[in-house]
Amino acid sequence: MGGSSKNYLRGYGEDRLVAELTRGLPRGREVLVGPGDDCAVIGRPRDVRWQLLKADVVVEGVHFLPSDDPRRVGWKALCRALSDLAAMGGEPAHALVTLAVSPDEEVARVKAIYAGLKRAAKRFGVSIVGGETSRSPGPLFLDIALTGWVERSRCVLRSGGRAGDALYVTGRLGGSRAGRHLDFTPRLAEARWLTEHFRPRAMMDLSDGLAADLPRLARASGCGFTLEMETIPRSPGVTLDQALRDGEDFELLFALPPRLAAKLEGAWPKKFPRLRLTRIGQLSASQRSTLNAQPPRGFDHFA
Amino acid sequence: MGGSSKNYLRGYGEDRLVAELTRGLPRGREVLVGPGDDCAVIGRPRDVRWQLLKADVVVEGVHFLPSDDPRRVGWKALCRALSDLAAMGGEPAHALVTLAVSPDEEVARVKAIYAGLKRAAKRFGVSIVGGETSRSPGPLFLDIALTGWVERSRCVLRSGGRAGDALYVTGRLGGSRAGRHLDFTPRLAEARWLTEHFRPRAMMDLSDGLAADLPRLARASGCGFTLEMETIPRSPGVTLDQALRDGEDFELLFALPPRLAAKLEGAWPKKFPRLRLTRIGQLSASQRSTLNAQPPRGFDHFA
Repeated sequence: MGGSSKNYLRGYGEDRLVAELTRGLPRGREVLVGPGDDCAVIGRPRDVRWQLLKADVVVEGVHFLPSDDPRRVGWKALCRALSDLAAMGGEPAHALVTLAVSPDEEVARVKAIYAGLKRAAKRFGVSIVGGETSRSPGPLFLDIALTGWVERSRCVLRSGGRAGDALYVTGRLGGSRAGRHLDFTPRLAEARWLTEHFRPRAMMDLSDGLAADLPRLARASGCGFTLEMETIPRSPGVTLDQALRDGEDFELLFALPPRLAAKLEGAWPKKFPRLRLTRIGQLSASQRSTLNAQPPRGFDHFA
Repeated sequence: MGGSSKNYLRGYGEDRLVAELTRGLPRGREVLVGPGDDCAVIGRPRDVRWQLLKADVVVEGVHFLPSDDPRRVGWKALCRALSDLAAMGGEPAHALVTLAVSPDEEVARVKAIYAGLKRAAKRFGVSIVGGETSRSPGPLFLDIALTGWVERSRCVLRSGGRAGDALYVTGRLGGSRAGRHLDFTPRLAEARWLTEHFRPRAMMDLSDGLAADLPRLARASGCGFTLEMETIPRSPGVTLDQALRDGEDFELLFALPPRLAAKLEGAWPKKFPRLRLTRIGQLSASQRSTLNAQPPRGFDHFA
């Protein structure tokens, strides 16, 4: 042991770290889905509804800047967690807010963050039921814990995809760093409609960029994937690389049986005329994935 | 407005800030208790069981030091939230863990924090079902969101106390800064026994010190209080002032109808021979409170 080199988070790999940390966690009988999907799923297998649980954090200097509008910071914090709930096909219910902030912070800034939280809560039907405030000797830290629910029959995991399923994304990817990451709309309504009418086999929200997140969905489903690079919908002015890697798109990525593809592509623009839906490839049986570009490298919080 | 002085959190008053932030929050029909008690309570009035929700955070440099044993830091983080659940008379169920940490942190330290979390989770029957990791450009933040439940008939709020109720605390107060704050035991078993056999009218856990927390319980109950200073149970070697103000005792404070006092004082030492129970005063009708010492000043995170 003496003198052996130490490992640091930088370069260790976020997925590897999370897998190692969550290995061997005690898990009660009612935990249907634990760490590794967009939300945890709690309930008994035959319950009509299951509970969804998700926590997500924004940190000053990482997810927003000190100069950003604090109302938009509050909005973003709650909407990030809502996006994860959408990815399971769920409806939100209750939120807890944890705020750690410097004593030298202006009261007005903290109130503006809360104004943004309240606006998102009202818009998406969330009750903020409590939380905690603490001093921070460093950056501002805003953590949201969210509960929600989903009908058993409409709960969508990352792991249900099958070889041959068509892969879709909502909206356009990339450009979050230009400011969109503070103003996005979690795709709750779209996901609810999808799970009511089309039952995607697998779904997740795009938080770390398609290049990082699609391999996660494929891996969870025991599949590889084929990605048609030229079809990837890009935000105005962004490169393909940015569309793949910027992260914080908060769009839905889902896998659908190919026999439903034509029906979905006909119905979607009537229901959501202002939000693009794009077929970007398919899941494959091979664990090796095909891209007509460089293999993607994901966004890693510690890289 | 122009040129008016700005308010900063330091000196603003934590209770005032929280009251202002949580005013006007959207609140759904199933929110039985929102911000202001130890946990939020969710359910319908006639449900047999209600859900409890709580979030709590520890911040490096505030709640623990970089040199502290990381296993004890993980233990503390989960046990703080468990202490709040105990204060409602509840049983814990599921936890989400949010960790924000520097990329320059050692992997071994993060794993040791998780080892402490897992130890507390196993000890108290909690399933850690998910969470989030993020980069921190500053101190390490460890936030816990906890769900639990309580039978409707055993749920204890801060607000149920009545004038004349006897006030009790478990354990000994003060001395947390000498290290006890990393090793305390949340009083889940004691609170469950109390709510089964004695139905306290009001209860909370002591996190900010008796001097800050007792006035909160009294105010929530619409009462004042009389505190017999000489009865306050102190940890070895601490002054009365430290016992009142150190904070992080994580003992129970509760109010009991005086007719039950003798029975409780007889039964407690048989059930919990190693944990002291002390009657420290009573709730009073007057909103003015009587102390045979200086008026207490509470622990304020931003003071």
